[in-house]
Amino acid sequence: MNKIPVAVLAATGSVGQRFVQLLDNHPWFEVVALTGSDRGYGKPYGEVCRWILPGEMPAWARSLPVLASTPEEVQVPLAFSGLPTDVAKEVEPAFARAGTAVCSNASAFRPEPDVPLLIPEVNPEHAHVIPAQQKRLGWSGFIATNPNCTSTGMTVALKALKDAFGLRRVFAVSMQALSGAGYPGVASMDIIDNVIPYIGGEEDKVETEPLKMLGTQDGTRIHNADFVISAHTNRVAVSDGHTVCLTVEFERRAGPEEVSAALAGYRVPDLACGLPSTPQPAIMLRSEENRPQPRLDRMTGSGMTTVVGRVRADRLFDARMVVLSHNTIRGAAGGSIYNAELLVKLGYIQGARP
Amino acid sequence: MNKIPVAVLAATGSVGQRFVQLLDNHPWFEVVALTGSDRGYGKPYGEVCRWILPGEMPAWARSLPVLASTPEEVQVPLAFSGLPTDVAKEVEPAFARAGTAVCSNASAFRPEPDVPLLIPEVNPEHAHVIPAQQKRLGWSGFIATNPNCTSTGMTVALKALKDAFGLRRVFAVSMQALSGAGYPGVASMDIIDNVIPYIGGEEDKVETEPLKMLGTQDGTRIHNADFVISAHTNRVAVSDGHTVCLTVEFERRAGPEEVSAALAGYRVPDLACGLPSTPQPAIMLRSEENRPQPRLDRMTGSGMTTVVGRVRADRLFDARMVVLSHNTIRGAAGGSIYNAELLVKLGYIQGARP
Amino acid sequence: MNKIPVAVLAATGSVGQRFVQLLDNHPWFEVVALTGSDRGYGKPYGEVCRWILPGEMPAWARSLPVLASTPEEVQVPLAFSGLPTDVAKEVEPAFARAGTAVCSNASAFRPEPDVPLLIPEVNPEHAHVIPAQQKRLGWSGFIATNPNCTSTGMTVALKALKDAFGLRRVFAVSMQALSGAGYPGVASMDIIDNVIPYIGGEEDKVETEPLKMLGTQDGTRIHNADFVISAHTNRVAVSDGHTVCLTVEFERRAGPEEVSAALAGYRVPDLACGLPSTPQPAIMLRSEENRPQPRLDRMTGSGMTTVVGRVRADRLFDARMVVLSHNTIRGAAGGSIYNAELLVKLGYIQGARP
Amino acid sequence: MNKIPVAVLAATGSVGQRFVQLLDNHPWFEVVALTGSDRGYGKPYGEVCRWILPGEMPAWARSLPVLASTPEEVQVPLAFSGLPTDVAKEVEPAFARAGTAVCSNASAFRPEPDVPLLIPEVNPEHAHVIPAQQKRLGWSGFIATNPNCTSTGMTVALKALKDAFGLRRVFAVSMQALSGAGYPGVASMDIIDNVIPYIGGEEDKVETEPLKMLGTQDGTRIHNADFVISAHTNRVAVSDGHTVCLTVEFERRAGPEEVSAALAGYRVPDLACGLPSTPQPAIMLRSEENRPQPRLDRMTGSGMTTVVGRVRADRLFDARMVVLSHNTIRGAAGGSIYNAELLVKLGYIQGARP
Repeated sequence: MNKIPVAVLAATGSVGQRFVQLLDNHPWFEVVALTGSDRGYGKPYGEVCRWILPGEMPAWARSLPVLASTPEEVQVPLAFSGLPTDVAKEVEPAFARAGTAVCSNASAFRPEPDVPLLIPEVNPEHAHVIPAQQKRLGWSGFIATNPNCTSTGMTVALKALKDAFGLRRVFAVSMQALSGAGYPGVASMDIIDNVIPYIGGEEDKVETEPLKMLGTQDGTRIHNADFVISAHTNRVAVSDGHTVCLTVEFERRAGPEEVSAALAGYRVPDLACGLPSTPQPAIMLRSEENRPQPRLDRMTGSGMTTVVGRVRADRLFDARMVVLSHNTIRGAAGGSIYNAELLVKLGYIQGARP
Repeated sequence: MNKIPVAVLAATGSVGQRFVQLLDNHPWFEVVALTGSDRGYGKPYGEVCRWILPGEMPAWARSLPVLASTPEEVQVPLAFSGLPTDVAKEVEPAFARAGTAVCSNASAFRPEPDVPLLIPEVNPEHAHVIPAQQKRLGWSGFIATNPNCTSTGMTVALKALKDAFGLRRVFAVSMQALSGAGYPGVASMDIIDNVIPYIGGEEDKVETEPLKMLGTQDGTRIHNADFVISAHTNRVAVSDGHTVCLTVEFERRAGPEEVSAALAGYRVPDLACGLPSTPQPAIMLRSEENRPQPRLDRMTGSGMTTVVGRVRADRLFDARMVVLSHNTIRGAAGGSIYNAELLVKLGYIQGARP
Repeated sequence: MNKIPVAVLAATGSVGQRFVQLLDNHPWFEVVALTGSDRGYGKPYGEVCRWILPGEMPAWARSLPVLASTPEEVQVPLAFSGLPTDVAKEVEPAFARAGTAVCSNASAFRPEPDVPLLIPEVNPEHAHVIPAQQKRLGWSGFIATNPNCTSTGMTVALKALKDAFGLRRVFAVSMQALSGAGYPGVASMDIIDNVIPYIGGEEDKVETEPLKMLGTQDGTRIHNADFVISAHTNRVAVSDGHTVCLTVEFERRAGPEEVSAALAGYRVPDLACGLPSTPQPAIMLRSEENRPQPRLDRMTGSGMTTVVGRVRADRLFDARMVVLSHNTIRGAAGGSIYNAELLVKLGYIQGARP
Repeated sequence: MNKIPVAVLAATGSVGQRFVQLLDNHPWFEVVALTGSDRGYGKPYGEVCRWILPGEMPAWARSLPVLASTPEEVQVPLAFSGLPTDVAKEVEPAFARAGTAVCSNASAFRPEPDVPLLIPEVNPEHAHVIPAQQKRLGWSGFIATNPNCTSTGMTVALKALKDAFGLRRVFAVSMQALSGAGYPGVASMDIIDNVIPYIGGEEDKVETEPLKMLGTQDGTRIHNADFVISAHTNRVAVSDGHTVCLTVEFERRAGPEEVSAALAGYRVPDLACGLPSTPQPAIMLRSEENRPQPRLDRMTGSGMTTVVGRVRADRLFDARMVVLSHNTIRGAAGGSIYNAELLVKLGYIQGARP
């Protein structure tokens, strides 16, 4: 079996390192190129990259040279992008134009109606706007994105609830992990014995991205769902794992038992089943009164499962619950890799097929 | 000037220690008795109490003997109670029956319609149900309570908003400090690199206590306000200072500027002004995008001021904001002392007057 | 292949839970009995035990009934003990008398000259005092112990250094993880934004246990090595992984390169090689200037490897270094299991052999 | 009374902010100038400075314009320097040449034999090398420095011990606060659930600065003391307050009681007594088995007192103890201000005298 050669763009950053870690021994993909900033060009990744993840940098990555993020230097059918948004704006279209499928964690193109914003267990069919994107822009490649890390877990839970009861209004308050801010990210003096009740740009993403993902596609573009989300986003002293308190109003009334059943019974759509990164289960419903907790539950399903708990009735809307999702695995690099697996299955990514 | 002799019940606990600390050099009150559990009876407080606050135990407290929490042992016109709820149920009425004014931090009697649940800068006039309480129970003393630590700060903010715009619906999500759980309280293994999205009994208190405090009194009892609160309560790795995300629906529409003006312009009612613990100001409105923060803002106004920030419009209701309050000062011992000062001013507490 | 049936004594505690977790799918041992305190007798472990480890309680453990820690209730050839020291003093001899091999994490019998205090990669030959122990006490079973969690990692490093250069004097200062204090253990208010420069009884253990392990056995008893250790022990805000700063004086001079070579080249003795829990490698020597770090390095070798870094010359003695070891895996349950594997290999544990 | 006009160099940094905070309402000094980096020149300090300390920026500081750090822009008899070392190398001599007394927290000139490295309660007489410094360099001003934050507390303790017993060898292991690394300083991802066993350049400072401070001056230069220090330095998750484990060998034997008496009985030398920042007491000796602790003890004596505890005998040297000192007050800005007060008293600083 020939693996598909892939690149990781911005491989030295915190999301980039997660890509390198999660692609180690991937059954379908083989990393052949890593890119970084200009002060590292040409040097081995093992020398340039300050590895900040528990566990060792994979041996194969150490010796790969750090390249510039240009399609001239990096010719691959598939690139994973951990680029910062402002850089992604220029670089990702260049790769797509050159024929590369770009699976991006950057927010730059997420709002575009013909750029799929994908969570495979939620909206795999949104991938089918890719041909329209290619046609509009004259690209042989394309860009597909994964959502903001905080949007990810709550959208999986909201999908199960929308399917079962319809959605009207959602109130969301996050308590987000430090790794979501990248590295060096949040200063330690800002978070020790503290909460920071603000994350720049985050509330807007949390209030809009789920609407796109829970919307519909007509083969040309994606139409947003029409419920409303209101969010507060906060940073807390947690390394990995975003916790979100959700209060939800449905289109039809439902009690906690029904809500729990809808969450526990949610199944990954057939399109997204059986892939190497398919979470097992999609949603883990916990019955303890004090779960989910990031330290205990973030690695559920190898960090790909959305964990929900504390399902209970509400005085204002219909139901309350707490949602936990691993922000740099499910909410970033792992999600992007799962997207690529889906796009291979759907035939949108060329190259040696497994 | 003769100070009023006072006792602190359960003085060895975490709230009790705050009482002892805050009563050090109080201009009106002089601690003459400290009570504790039976294993310490008769021994000096300095020997029995494991002091957990920064700063030294006051010298006068070291030599006071630890007494039993009974009106026979402790005969004072005023007692501050840091008793656990189950013990308070028995002990506080015994003191009130014996003629002591009990200012209690326990939740045991907060729901009683003729027991005032007081925040002096919010509802000082609720003190006037005390005679009805005394008459009903045949007590010469009485019980007055301060609210749950999480309810405290948000109620101060809600009072300003209710006065200005009326209240319909409130969403509240708390991120609460460790000291709120007492000592030893939360195990360190449960909170390091973690959030606990559950605090037993807390959501019910947060959803009901503000309604009582923002209600009206008719000289006999207190009638709850009729808006609705829905809460999630969470524990985070913060030593002191509860942070609450609030989203509020008013009776009449108001934009962020009006809301900010109402908060910044809120004044302590005349009844509660000029007392030793009167917060200055009642509400501190912060304009930075990332404040209030517990580590930076909890000691505002010596820990008695409610700090509000991030006032902004909302997609579902009218306004969003973040409220911070020091949970063991404003939300516990300091609040109870401020209540006692108010009750002295109103003539409900007997004894030498300052 | 028939597995050896084993019991875990005090299986509901924090060390007990690690035993249950690490024995899940063990190739040689099968847990058939779990014991706990009397309030849980007869109830299923899944109901009685508050599981505090990341990851789920193994399914087989959920339904096992919690038994009393007596040899009448629990008849097995091998028992792992996570008992508190005072209980271990009574219970472990009862099991040994009844024929059970007790691999104990308790400190009760560690100082006995004919009770082996084992780290298989350090002193596997100390197991050979077991017959003398059995003879002296008339037991058909026996007790074998693993050292204190802080002693463990530093003794592995000291063994490599002693073999190469001889040891005269050792300064050790630990920064220890919260899990070392059990559950609930350290109160969160005591460790947030704090260091506790004291751990009861710990310095004495750190100063004496390595001397026994690095001593010699004569078939009857163990004779302590004759170098001297001086220790400070501290608690810091780390979940797992004890860090120890070591400064060492050798019998013969050696520079940092030689010291590094001795550490990196240390090999597990043949007696202890090839067992299921043999660490690979025994010692991981890190070359970065700021490693080892508990969050990044504690899981090296599945938590069984001793990680050493910052090897450098010293102004007073010969060499300085930092040693990290996982305190509840290598330093407790994992170490005890590795001991049992060694004792099976050496023929001291009866029962079905793998 | 006319106050002495002073400047704070690098006033926007973390040490600079502490200078501004501690100089608020200083009885002798009045801040008339603040300097910062070029992107803030001419703008008000309140706009340029991101204030990171609890409590508000003093009102008078808000409106002061941020100036360049040159003697042309800033003409004052006394300047406090929070400059980074590389900048201090150029800027501090320029001020000294122009007639300003520079009290510096930077390490650039600490090793110079005619630059005093001052802790007033330890070596106030070292100030008398200032004329030699001025003569050698032809300056009308001068540079006086305070030591590294970790050296500070341990040197106060070592001074008391040296006076009483003489010093031969000292083993020191620090657990240092985050604020010692400035702002943004340590990344939160590097310290959550972690220890960093390395601080660049710190061990060398800790091993050499105390020797200079505990040395002698002959009117021309300072001669180092001749004992030896060996150090490990570590970063831990503490906001403020450096903890140091010390093991000390004396010239003459002494038991724990004598050592405790020497520490508790240490008095500030007459030269340094009665100044606004004189710590009261110089050393606080704690008798609890688990103190000092940074969260509880760092503010002893308004953060200027050195706190010592756990005095006990040692197996290798003579005594062991734990020393705590507030790193940004006693160990940085507060120490530098105390130095300036001493230099005013000694007549080395010109200007209006109090």
